Amino acid sequence: AGKSQHNEDQACCEVVFVEQRSREGSGELDGGRKGFYFHYWALFDGHAGSGAAVMASERLHLHICEQTGSADPNQVSYAEDGGEVPNDAVPRFHLEKAVSHESLVIGAIENAFKHMDDQIEQERASQHLAGGCCALAAIYLMGKFYVANAGDSRAIIIRNGEIIPMSREFTPETERQRLQFLALLRPELLGKEFTHLEFPRRIQPKELGKKMLYRDQNMNGWAYKKIEEDDLKFPLIFGEGKKARMMATIGVTRGLGDHDLKVFSSNIHIKPFLSCFPEVRVYDLTQYEHCPDDVLVLGTDGLWDVTNDKEVAGVVMEVLTSYEPNDPCRYTMVAQELVVRSRGVLKERGWRLANDKLGSGDDISVFVIPLGGPGNYT
Amino acid sequence: AGKSQHNEDQACCEVVFVEQRSREGSGELDGGRKGFYFHYWALFDGHAGSGAAVMASERLHLHICEQTGSADPNQVSYAEDGGEVPNDAVPRFHLEKAVSHESLVIGAIENAFKHMDDQIEQERASQHLAGGCCALAAIYLMGKFYVANAGDSRAIIIRNGEIIPMSREFTPETERQRLQFLALLRPELLGKEFTHLEFPRRIQPKELGKKMLYRDQNMNGWAYKKIEEDDLKFPLIFGEGKKARMMATIGVTRGLGDHDLKVFSSNIHIKPFLSCFPEVRVYDLTQYEHCPDDVLVLGTDGLWDVTNDKEVAGVVMEVLTSYEPNDPCRYTMVAQELVVRSRGVLKERGWRLANDKLGSGDDISVFVIPLGGPGNYT
Repeated sequence: AGKSQHNEDQACCEVVFVEQRSREGSGELDGGRKGFYFHYWALFDGHAGSGAAVMASERLHLHICEQTGSADPNQVSYAEDGGEVPNDAVPRFHLEKAVSHESLVIGAIENAFKHMDDQIEQERASQHLAGGCCALAAIYLMGKFYVANAGDSRAIIIRNGEIIPMSREFTPETERQRLQFLALLRPELLGKEFTHLEFPRRIQPKELGKKMLYRDQNMNGWAYKKIEEDDLKFPLIFGEGKKARMMATIGVTRGLGDHDLKVFSSNIHIKPFLSCFPEVRVYDLTQYEHCPDDVLVLGTDGLWDVTNDKEVAGVVMEVLTSYEPNDPCRYTMVAQELVVRSRGVLKERGWRLANDKLGSGDDISVFVIPLGGPGNYT
Repeated sequence: AGKSQHNEDQACCEVVFVEQRSREGSGELDGGRKGFYFHYWALFDGHAGSGAAVMASERLHLHICEQTGSADPNQVSYAEDGGEVPNDAVPRFHLEKAVSHESLVIGAIENAFKHMDDQIEQERASQHLAGGCCALAAIYLMGKFYVANAGDSRAIIIRNGEIIPMSREFTPETERQRLQFLALLRPELLGKEFTHLEFPRRIQPKELGKKMLYRDQNMNGWAYKKIEEDDLKFPLIFGEGKKARMMATIGVTRGLGDHDLKVFSSNIHIKPFLSCFPEVRVYDLTQYEHCPDDVLVLGTDGLWDVTNDKEVAGVVMEVLTSYEPNDPCRYTMVAQELVVRSRGVLKERGWRLANDKLGSGDDISVFVIPLGGPGNYT
C-alpha cells in the first residue's frame, strides 16, 4: 500500500516431519526414522522493521518441531526414568493429575513461541534484526487444528456458512487487566512517567482535587476517585479501538521481538509488558463432517480492519461457488480476492473500496485452508 | 446437613431506595427525596465460621446503595465542578472515552464489594467476626439485572427452557494464572514453602534431575522441565475439581473476609491471593419477552455440587407447571424443592438422593426469581 518500503507481513507454510527421539538413558533410536508429520501455516505481521517477522517465518516451525518432538505426543509420561515407561495417560501416583495429549501439544507450541522469542533476542545484534511481529500459526496434527495467536491477526473457521472464531486479539484494550496488574506490582517499570490507572481522558493539572472516573486492574466498570498528583501522569493504557496504545507506543501486546523497543525519547522499556506466549485454540476436525466449501481463514489485521467476518464468509462462498469443487486453485483465488477487495483502488484520497469506504493502507496477508473435500485428512 | 453447628449460608433480599445526593459545591438537596430503587437478592456462603457471611448479608446492599448513589447513574459526568454539569455521556474533551451508564453501575457494585471487605477487616476484632464467605448478588436496576459473583456460588437464567449462565466460579483452578502471576512477581508471599509452578503431582526428592511436566503462569498446556531443588516445594495450586486447593488451604479464590487466614501451622497469609472483586454480568430484561416460567436461579455450591444446570431447569419446569401461573408462591416452592432434592435423605451411609447418589452434605441456599409474568418490571 506504500505504508512502508518493504512488505512487513511474512508468511510460511510447511509440512514438517517430527522425528521422535529415544528417551534419556536408552541411548539409541529404533531401526528406521520414527515420528509423525504436522502441517503448518503461519502469518507474521511485522512492525518497526521486517527483521523479526522474516526470522520468525523461517524458524518458528522448527521450534514447534523441536518442542513437539520432546513432548512425545504419542505417549504421555511424567517424571521419566530409564526403566518404567508408561504408555497411556493413566496416573501412576496417588492424586496425580491426568494430562491429555492435546495439552502436551498446546504446551509444546507455547514453548516454541518462547524459544523463538529467545532466539530473536540472542541473534538480533549479529543478524541486524529490527522490530517485532505478531504471529498467528495453524498446526494440523493428528486430526486436530491447533491455532496459536500472539497479536492482532485473526483466524476464523467458516463451516456450512457458520462463523467460528479461532483466535482473539491481544491489544492494550483486551489485555488491560494483565498490564495494569503487572504495573501495579512492578511500578518501577513505569519509570515515573505513567500511572497504572485508566482514565477516560488526560487530566489537567488544574483539576487536582476534583473527582474523576477511573478503572483499576481489578475493575471492569468505572468509578470516581479524587484526583491526586500521581493521576496527572500519562495512563499506561490510552486510546480506543485501533488507536489504543500501551505507554503511548504500541497497539499490540503479544508477539515476538521488540526487545529494544522503548517509549519515545525515554529509557523506559516496553518488552516487560509484552507477552510472547500465544493463546492456542483447538478444533477437532474429526468431530464434524466437512464439505469442500468449509475453510479456515488466517489474516493479518490489514484484512480484518476493513473486511468483517461476515463479509469474508460472503467472499469465500461467492468465489468458491464460481469454481469446480475439485479445482485445487479455488482456495488460492479466495485468498487473492480477499486481499484485492480489502486493498481497494488507489484514488486521490487514498485506497478506496468498491463501496467508496476507506481501503486498507496496511500490509494484507491471507491463508485460506480447506477443511474438507477430496483427499481430506491425509 | 450436620457439617457445622450453624448454617454458614446467609441470604438477604431487599428493595433499596438510593437517594441521589447533590453535587459537591451546590450544598443543598432538591425539594423532595430524589432517587431511584433497586431490587436486591444475595447469597453468602461462609467458611471457617459464619461471622463474615452474617455481616455481609446485613450490609452489602447498603454499600451498593452508597456506591450507586455516588455513581449518579442518571447522568454521567466526568471531572466534576460546581458550574458545568453535563447531562449525558457525550464526551466534552478531545479523545475522551465515553463511559456508559451500565459500566458506572458495574463499577459501583465492584467498589461496594471492596468497601464491604474493608469493613469486615476493620470490625472483625470488635465484632468477633471469624472466617470468610463467597458472595453472589443479583441487582435489578432500571430494566437490567446485574449479577455479581465472588466465589463458587452460581447463577443461571432459565428462559423458555434455555439455560443462560450468569456467573462463573472463582477457584484455584479457574484463577490459576492470576495466582501464579502474583506469586511469580511477589515470591515473598510464598514464604519459602510453595512454588508458583504447577505439577501433576508431588515430586519426590529422589526425582531431582529427572524431567517432569509443569505449567507456568503464561501456559495453558503442559511441558517438560528438569526437576530442580525449588520444584520440591509444595505447588501453589494443587488438586483437581472440588478438591483443588490454593496453598493447601482454600478452595475458593474470591470472596469477602478471611483477613486472618493462614496456611496451617505457618505464618503465611492467604488473603493477598484472594480477590474481593466480583465479576459482574449484565442481563437486559427489556431485550427479550419473558413468560411467567422464566426465572433467575441463584444457588450456593451445596446446590450445584449435586444438581446440574439441566436438572435444575427440569425441577423448575416440573414444579412451576404444577401451580397456577399467577400463584405467587410457585417460585418459593421451586426453591424449596431444589433444596430438598439436593439434600436427599439421611441414610446409614450419609445423605442420599432419590437415585441413591450422594446428596449434598453442605449448606444449601437457593433463590428463584421470576423474570416475567403479571406485574412485571415495576
